[in-house]
Amino acid sequence: MEIIPTGISGFDELVHGGIVRGNSVLVEGIPGAGKTTFGIEFVYRGITEFNEPGVIVTCEELPESIYRDALNFGWDLRALEEANKLRILCTSPEVLQDAEVNLIEEVVREVGARRILVDSISHFRNVLNDPLSLRNAVYSFCNGLRRLGLTSFLVKEREGEGQREYAFEEYVVDAVIRLENKETPGLHRLRVLEICKTRGQEHFSGKHTFRITDTGIKVFALEGIA
Amino acid sequence: MEIIPTGISGFDELVHGGIVRGNSVLVEGIPGAGKTTFGIEFVYRGITEFNEPGVIVTCEELPESIYRDALNFGWDLRALEEANKLRILCTSPEVLQDAEVNLIEEVVREVGARRILVDSISHFRNVLNDPLSLRNAVYSFCNGLRRLGLTSFLVKEREGEGQREYAFEEYVVDAVIRLENKETPGLHRLRVLEICKTRGQEHFSGKHTFRITDTGIKVFALEGIA
Amino acid sequence: MEIIPTGISGFDELVHGGIVRGNSVLVEGIPGAGKTTFGIEFVYRGITEFNEPGVIVTCEELPESIYRDALNFGWDLRALEEANKLRILCTSPEVLQDAEVNLIEEVVREVGARRILVDSISHFRNVLNDPLSLRNAVYSFCNGLRRLGLTSFLVKEREGEGQREYAFEEYVVDAVIRLENKETPGLHRLRVLEICKTRGQEHFSGKHTFRITDTGIKVFALEGIA
Amino acid sequence: MEIIPTGISGFDELVHGGIVRGNSVLVEGIPGAGKTTFGIEFVYRGITEFNEPGVIVTCEELPESIYRDALNFGWDLRALEEANKLRILCTSPEVLQDAEVNLIEEVVREVGARRILVDSISHFRNVLNDPLSLRNAVYSFCNGLRRLGLTSFLVKEREGEGQREYAFEEYVVDAVIRLENKETPGLHRLRVLEICKTRGQEHFSGKHTFRITDTGIKVFALEGIA
Amino acid sequence: MEIIPTGISGFDELVHGGIVRGNSVLVEGIPGAGKTTFGIEFVYRGITEFNEPGVIVTCEELPESIYRDALNFGWDLRALEEANKLRILCTSPEVLQDAEVNLIEEVVREVGARRILVDSISHFRNVLNDPLSLRNAVYSFCNGLRRLGLTSFLVKEREGEGQREYAFEEYVVDAVIRLENKETPGLHRLRVLEICKTRGQEHFSGKHTFRITDTGIKVFALEGIA
Amino acid sequence: MEIIPTGISGFDELVHGGIVRGNSVLVEGIPGAGKTTFGIEFVYRGITEFNEPGVIVTCEELPESIYRDALNFGWDLRALEEANKLRILCTSPEVLQDAEVNLIEEVVREVGARRILVDSISHFRNVLNDPLSLRNAVYSFCNGLRRLGLTSFLVKEREGEGQREYAFEEYVVDAVIRLENKETPGLHRLRVLEICKTRGQEHFSGKHTFRITDTGIKVFALEGIA
Ligand SMILES: Nc1ncnc2c1ncn2[C@@H]1O[C@H](COP(=O)(O)OP(=O)(O)O)[C@@H](O)[C@H]1O
Ligand SMILES: Nc1ncnc2c1ncn2[C@@H]1O[C@H](COP(=O)(O)OP(=O)(O)O)[C@@H](O)[C@H]1O
Ligand SMILES: Nc1ncnc2c1ncn2[C@@H]1O[C@H](COP(=O)(O)OP(=O)(O)O)[C@@H](O)[C@H]1O
Ligand SMILES: Nc1ncnc2c1ncn2[C@@H]1O[C@H](COP(=O)(O)OP(=O)(O)O)[C@@H](O)[C@H]1O
Ligand SMILES: Nc1ncnc2c1ncn2[C@@H]1O[C@H](COP(=O)(O)OP(=O)(O)O)[C@@H](O)[C@H]1O
Ligand SMILES: Nc1ncnc2c1ncn2[C@@H]1O[C@H](COP(=O)(O)OP(=O)(O)O)[C@@H](O)[C@H]1O
Ligand SMILES: [Mg+2]
Ligand SMILES: [Mg+2]
Ligand SMILES: [Mg+2]
Ligand SMILES: [Mg+2]
Ligand SMILES: [Mg+2]
Ligand SMILES: [Mg+2]
Repeated sequence: MEIIPTGISGFDELVHGGIVRGNSVLVEGIPGAGKTTFGIEFVYRGITEFNEPGVIVTCEELPESIYRDALNFGWDLRALEEANKLRILCTSPEVLQDAEVNLIEEVVREVGARRILVDSISHFRNVLNDPLSLRNAVYSFCNGLRRLGLTSFLVKEREGEGQREYAFEEYVVDAVIRLENKETPGLHRLRVLEICKTRGQEHFSGKHTFRITDTGIKVFALEGIA
Repeated sequence: MEIIPTGISGFDELVHGGIVRGNSVLVEGIPGAGKTTFGIEFVYRGITEFNEPGVIVTCEELPESIYRDALNFGWDLRALEEANKLRILCTSPEVLQDAEVNLIEEVVREVGARRILVDSISHFRNVLNDPLSLRNAVYSFCNGLRRLGLTSFLVKEREGEGQREYAFEEYVVDAVIRLENKETPGLHRLRVLEICKTRGQEHFSGKHTFRITDTGIKVFALEGIA
Repeated sequence: MEIIPTGISGFDELVHGGIVRGNSVLVEGIPGAGKTTFGIEFVYRGITEFNEPGVIVTCEELPESIYRDALNFGWDLRALEEANKLRILCTSPEVLQDAEVNLIEEVVREVGARRILVDSISHFRNVLNDPLSLRNAVYSFCNGLRRLGLTSFLVKEREGEGQREYAFEEYVVDAVIRLENKETPGLHRLRVLEICKTRGQEHFSGKHTFRITDTGIKVFALEGIA
Repeated sequence: MEIIPTGISGFDELVHGGIVRGNSVLVEGIPGAGKTTFGIEFVYRGITEFNEPGVIVTCEELPESIYRDALNFGWDLRALEEANKLRILCTSPEVLQDAEVNLIEEVVREVGARRILVDSISHFRNVLNDPLSLRNAVYSFCNGLRRLGLTSFLVKEREGEGQREYAFEEYVVDAVIRLENKETPGLHRLRVLEICKTRGQEHFSGKHTFRITDTGIKVFALEGIA
Repeated sequence: MEIIPTGISGFDELVHGGIVRGNSVLVEGIPGAGKTTFGIEFVYRGITEFNEPGVIVTCEELPESIYRDALNFGWDLRALEEANKLRILCTSPEVLQDAEVNLIEEVVREVGARRILVDSISHFRNVLNDPLSLRNAVYSFCNGLRRLGLTSFLVKEREGEGQREYAFEEYVVDAVIRLENKETPGLHRLRVLEICKTRGQEHFSGKHTFRITDTGIKVFALEGIA
Repeated sequence: MEIIPTGISGFDELVHGGIVRGNSVLVEGIPGAGKTTFGIEFVYRGITEFNEPGVIVTCEELPESIYRDALNFGWDLRALEEANKLRILCTSPEVLQDAEVNLIEEVVREVGARRILVDSISHFRNVLNDPLSLRNAVYSFCNGLRRLGLTSFLVKEREGEGQREYAFEEYVVDAVIRLENKETPGLHRLRVLEICKTRGQEHFSGKHTFRITDTGIKVFALEGIA
């Protein structure tokens, strides 16, 4: 069992060094929670710090927005793409779901990718209605990525914040990371990150705070955790 | 990445100077929250303070009501329209959705608009039923506005206030501003504004108070924010 | 912009003198909240104190019940009807919705009405199912009343009390008044009135108490409001 | 406007002497709340204390159960029936709804009834599905009883206790009485009665306690009510 | 009106001696609440202490499980069956519902049963969909049991614990007993029993604790009850 | 009645020694709660400590993941499989449901299995829609396992955590174990285990804490339990 560090500051300590290679990790949260930033940093750090080429699949934003926003953190994705370390694949939800991983396979081969971000898999729900084929679709999608040797971050959009609810996506993946904007007494908000599940790994449970700084995400482990 | 100030008193400081040009901003709240006032002021300040012509699209009120109510804040929209700096487009929800941005394109060209208010996009839900085409419709609507070089404020009507809920509109846009009428201990109410998401930008999180004064909206940053 | 006083004791102060002429005001609350009394007093005061004839449209009660109950407050509606200052129109929900304002137009003309109470518009929901035509129906109903020069009070029945929920009716009208029976610590109840929205007008926000006395409604502004 | 005392101990004081003759009163609560007892006592007191014959319509229990249970309170309904002061009509929900008041009219004539208990009108919901015809059915049912000169108590079964919810029945009737089994700190329960609405009448609001004693219902007004 | 003691320790005192002969009692609770144990003890005590033969109808467990589990409390049901004092009828939900009480009638006759446990009537909901025929089915089922001279305990499975909800079954039966596993501050749980309704009888209201001991159920009346 | 120890540290004491042989135990919880680990340990301890061969049926993970993750706890499942003490059956939800226990019967025979883990039975819901046949399917599935002489752990995925809800699965099985990740004041979380139901057995109620250590699960009985 090989553990790969994400390279995200403060995060790897929470999972005793990193993510199990080949696993699929669900990153979920409401709009603005930081899912896209988290996922892009995972791919960016892979390329620049661990020499693992990556792929970003998005149905959310145009590549230009992604380049522009990443540059704010000092991440020059365009340069990485030109250096054949990165591919950004911008597709519509239907195509993503239809072609499943075939479409992805090609770009993965091109750069020899080891990491992938899929932003987001929520669209599967819109295309497939009956729960069983929905579950099967996500299940084979994850397995397809694993067969390509990829460690994957999959973004899922949450629709509410109050109650803790779990749907089939959380069951199918190997790990679940939840990003929240917790209300505090007073009118402030606090960004917290919780690891809900890590198959085959121990992790530090509880709500850890994090910040989005101008160089990326910084996670601060819960007090009382050694 | 160009930042444009909205011109709304106290707001631009919360987003470090303004909104990213070309972005789409969702303004959401319950009836009476101040969405229309917020959106009209954004367009009005654009014209009068930054020389950016604007367009107001409404399915909510008749132009006369808009003229009348804006005048209460000292904003003479009729004069701006005659000076070819502003267009008010009053349309039915069906037409808005059908023609998408073609209809809008024309009036945008007429005045060389850089800013737009669409009040409201909630009708999209009434016309389109299946979630995927609904999402795609809002997605291409936003992209259409962006292609016209517009920075856009889109109004969304919330139906409840208690729980924090997020729907596809919040995922598709670049920024989300939520206006609330918070209950306080005692029987008073407090207007608060929260920035939930700003793609590609930092912002001050938390619930900031605001007031609707006789010269427009005034936002007061949360204490403890420098 | 002309402001007309409702004549209801304590209320006009909360909206800086009265309601904008021609506007439509939604009065909503649970059974027994006082909606009918509030609406009838608005019409009654119009006739007797401001010389504005009025119309009462009801699908709720028989005219006899209305005469009888109003008389308890000392309001002799029958006399006003005979003096051609008032018309009471008792109709079924279907007819109200079908004929829209044509039916109303006639009686409005007869007495030269300036004010109207419609008790209630909740039936629109029962007749029309799809949200868009429902919204359009209420929207044109309101515009129809406005075109007749009427300032209108529309009653809406609420089905729950706990949560603050808003539906299309609240979006379409110009102002929203909510009547509640607030539980207090102990087993008592307190009548409170809240103004949720007033297009084109400032108002005192918060929950103001009111009483139903033997001469009609008396509103008491929240402490701390000058 | 004639007021008739119900004869129920402690209740009439809460409505300043009694119920408006001809009105329809909804008595609602969960199982075991005391609705049937309240309704039967209203009819029983009418016959024995105010010389107003009565009718009991039930779809809930067999006449034998009613005789037996009433006798526990010392109310000999069988004797009253033989004396032609009372009729008990045991019918199925469908028949009740179908024949509406014709079936009732007959027995009302036989004894010259002035009061009636209908236990319960909840079945209307089971037979009629669309909200408009449901409302109309209850509305004409009430009017039918009124035309027969009857003051009526209508029982409605509540399905939950936590939240305050209101349905069309509460809007259609003239008065609403809610019986509850309030949880107290500790594990005890307290029977409380609340008057939610009384058209054309003032009433003491709040939650009044009551007990079911071996001579019937005893209501205790909230402290602080003169 | 004849009262029969259930024989369950501590329970009969709460209903002033026992249950009205011929009545139907609903026993409801979540899984593990003790419904089956409560119901079996009612039948077992009837046979062994009051010489009233009994019948157990179950769709939940196989007879062997019932024998085995009852023996843990020292109740030798097999011996009672051989002595012709008891019959256990194991049937599928559909058959139970279809044949209604005919099937039951036979075994009741065989042993001259006076008491019956039906575990459970929740299946009626699965077979019958429209609310009216569902209610009628349970209503005639209960009346059928009464006509056979039986005092019956009917088990109903609850699906939630938080909110107090009532469905048609609670309206149709004569008495309702609710078994709960109350959370306490700390992480312990407390078994409580509440009598919600007893037609024609007084009862001690509130939440009484109980325990399942190795000789059966023991109920402890709420403190403060004489 | 034979009791078999599960071998899970700290658990057997809570059920006075173990589980009734032949019973079916539902293990339910949200993702990451520890269900799979709990179930695998039950089978692993059976083989290694009590000489009871076992079967693991999974639709969740590929056998390789199971081998890999179990090895982290020091459990060498592959070796056990080669020694013919264990079979891992990886199947799709449809097949599991379709073939019911026939498919399982074969592998059970091969190793002479006495224990089985089915991860998970939640798929039954996706395949069967009407509640009655769903219940019957789970009911006969459980009985099929019992007839094969198996003591079974069935995993059920919970979708929410807040409210205590019970569905037919909890009614059909003999015992229910709920695993939770309880929020504590502060931002930490606590793993707790609750036994909700054990037919034919006493158990210690309340929420017991547990930990997932590097040698498997360790349960700590609630303080105050001897
Ligand atoms: N350059 C930046 N510096 C600091 N914070 C930023 C920056 N860019 C974005 N953010 C913050 O990150 C949030 C957006 O994160 P994003 O990853 O797009 O969220 P999601 O994908 O969950 O909607 C914004 O709401 C903003 O608060
Ligand atoms: N001239 C004014 N001065 C002060 N407050 C005003 C004025 N006009 C409107 N308001 C306030 O603004 C609210 C309406 O704002 P609006 O922008 O129409 O809300 P929304 O579009 O969210 O329904 C009113 O409820 C009132 O409280
Ligand atoms: N003459 C009166 N004096 C005082 N209070 C009254 C009088 N008539 C009615 N009420 C109060 O007003 C309430 C009914 O108000 P109404 O306007 O009919 O409510 P709604 O239309 O919201 O159901 C009654 O429940 C009662 O409490
Ligand atoms: N003779 C009696 N003495 C005292 N209380 C009684 C008597 N008979 C019934 N009760 C109480 O009244 C309740 C039943 O009231 P009922 O009117 O049948 O309620 P509902 O019709 O709302 O279901 C019982 O639950 C019991 O608590
Ligand atoms: N012999 C026993 N001694 C003590 N408690 C027992 C015994 N047998 C079962 N129990 C308890 O009773 C509960 C099961 O009760 P049961 O009547 O089957 O509940 P239900 O039918 O409501 O699901 C078990 O969860 C256990 O806690
Ligand atoms: N080797 C390990 N050591 C400690 N904890 C572990 C280990 N492997 C997994 N875990 C913990 O167990 C959890 C997963 O348990 P699992 O049985 O797969 O849950 P479920 O089946 O309920 O989703 C992980 O979230 C992690 O916290
Ligand atoms: Mg994103
Ligand atoms: Mg608006
Ligand atoms: Mg009314
Ligand atoms: Mg009753
Ligand atoms: Mg049971
Ligand atoms: Mg699992």
